[in-house]
Amino acid sequence: MINRLISKIRKTNAPIAAGLDPMMKFVPEYIKKAAFAEYGETPEGAAEAVWQFNKGIVDAIYDLIPAVKPQIAMYEQFGVPGMAAFQKTVDYCHEKDLVVIGDIKRGDIGSTSDAYAAGHLGKVQVGSRTCGGFGEDFATVNPYLGSDGVKPFMEVCRKEKKGIFVLVKTSNPSSGEFQDRIIRAQEGAADKPLYEIVGEQVAAWGEACMPEEGDYSYVGAVVGATYPEQGRILRQLMPKAFILVPGYGAQGGRGADLVHFFQKDGLGAIVNSSRGIIAAYQQEQYAHFGERGYADAARAAVLAMIEDISSALTR
Amino acid sequence: MINRLISKIRKTNAPIAAGLDPMMKFVPEYIKKAAFAEYGETPEGAAEAVWQFNKGIVDAIYDLIPAVKPQIAMYEQFGVPGMAAFQKTVDYCHEKDLVVIGDIKRGDIGSTSDAYAAGHLGKVQVGSRTCGGFGEDFATVNPYLGSDGVKPFMEVCRKEKKGIFVLVKTSNPSSGEFQDRIIRAQEGAADKPLYEIVGEQVAAWGEACMPEEGDYSYVGAVVGATYPEQGRILRQLMPKAFILVPGYGAQGGRGADLVHFFQKDGLGAIVNSSRGIIAAYQQEQYAHFGERGYADAARAAVLAMIEDISSALTR
Repeated sequence: MINRLISKIRKTNAPIAAGLDPMMKFVPEYIKKAAFAEYGETPEGAAEAVWQFNKGIVDAIYDLIPAVKPQIAMYEQFGVPGMAAFQKTVDYCHEKDLVVIGDIKRGDIGSTSDAYAAGHLGKVQVGSRTCGGFGEDFATVNPYLGSDGVKPFMEVCRKEKKGIFVLVKTSNPSSGEFQDRIIRAQEGAADKPLYEIVGEQVAAWGEACMPEEGDYSYVGAVVGATYPEQGRILRQLMPKAFILVPGYGAQGGRGADLVHFFQKDGLGAIVNSSRGIIAAYQQEQYAHFGERGYADAARAAVLAMIEDISSALTR
Repeated sequence: MINRLISKIRKTNAPIAAGLDPMMKFVPEYIKKAAFAEYGETPEGAAEAVWQFNKGIVDAIYDLIPAVKPQIAMYEQFGVPGMAAFQKTVDYCHEKDLVVIGDIKRGDIGSTSDAYAAGHLGKVQVGSRTCGGFGEDFATVNPYLGSDGVKPFMEVCRKEKKGIFVLVKTSNPSSGEFQDRIIRAQEGAADKPLYEIVGEQVAAWGEACMPEEGDYSYVGAVVGATYPEQGRILRQLMPKAFILVPGYGAQGGRGADLVHFFQKDGLGAIVNSSRGIIAAYQQEQYAHFGERGYADAARAAVLAMIEDISSALTR
């Protein structure tokens, strides 16, 4: 799957994932109105609105980008109907040949991580049959529990040729609270921050999880666009890890900040933008598209993002 | 909710949560057979089997214990039907007046953590209406992203009188990989492991999240039974945090290890056992109950666990 992602990035010339994080305030009124008319102001109604909104976005941008990153929390908040909308979104993106990165940030121990890995990236056994789960291609994973939480995902990645992105340095303002703490070195080595220790571990996990061909591992990393200097260090520490870079646009990251996350060959990272794309019509720059043009506004925002990143990488 | 949990612990004299982690291998054949006959060997069939299994367990033990802790991964692996079984389980446990600790280990940033908090502990806005989500009473939270990931849960806890348990030192063998790393101290202070730093932060978050009455905060901590020495230290560092203690029984923790997690008043901790209770009939000690006696075996295991912990606390 990492090779498929890379081949799609090459084909589209767009190292970009569109974040399908459909907060209700991003969904145009006319879509909500139609959904509520059918299902009422209920979780079912919200889930229908989210799904219709997503479908419009995907139809407008699927030919421009290699991947989408649905944030499962935005679906899970609407309970079971929300999870059904998540499933529909994953399936529809696959119909449109998009790589789906499930932003699930799961992480637990042993048999529990097994269950998450099987349910999102693999298959589960039911009696004599194996059944598919949500079926994303990649998932994000939280490393706080150590190898016990990550290895079950690695097993599934090897078997199903799927991939993970492990949280290393997240894009949020308080990410340094624990991630930047300085770890006392073992003998002879230098002290270094926790995110570097996690990055080194991601590199080690990744070595054990290489596809038969290609330069990048099934085990990638999440490093926020808002921390370009840390991105530069981590890029070197994890040469075989693809980096998923959130925080572009709305969170403050810009094209020029992104160069550090890429290798010299222009590969090695995929940048996510969520509200910058899906809620583009709410920004002044794209306001002329209007509510009913939200999908066209998303397309325009993707084209601008491709241009921003391409020109930054060319310089 | 923390006061309700404490009052129920006092009433039952059982600081125990039963872990509703229904792996398929724990579910008796006759239950699976009936579920598959109705729904086929499908995720729907698996979800039905899980739900019927849970119902039997809950009916057999609800009067003995204050709380249950369903592990959401065991439901989520079966996709949307699995999440529906999770919802049914939460609702049924509420009917039986049990406190429900959702073992979800979520943690994300800003608006995303808002969505998780609302969807699991709070309410979501849909048009002009507010709707309940999965509706657990407590949730477990992963702290790797710092305050940004935890504060949205704290907001909901304050508003809805719910609670969280933040992962501090987890019960698994590799939990030390990052959690035990020694953090270099700021001037004048002593170096200490990451789990202590996280524990101090949990104590600080907890101070800001006290109920109107009572000694314990809405913000608790997860500390594994398998690390009693660390439990002793963390118990002192976080005097107002209730500690959720997983790892009893199958993972190796015993009653005698648990005393360090409690305060002198015999409160301050709640111990979880999952397979030790729900799969008791598969253990030699309870094998005489047979498959069809799985729920009675669970009741016997709960009674034994109450006895083990009571006698350890009395000594």
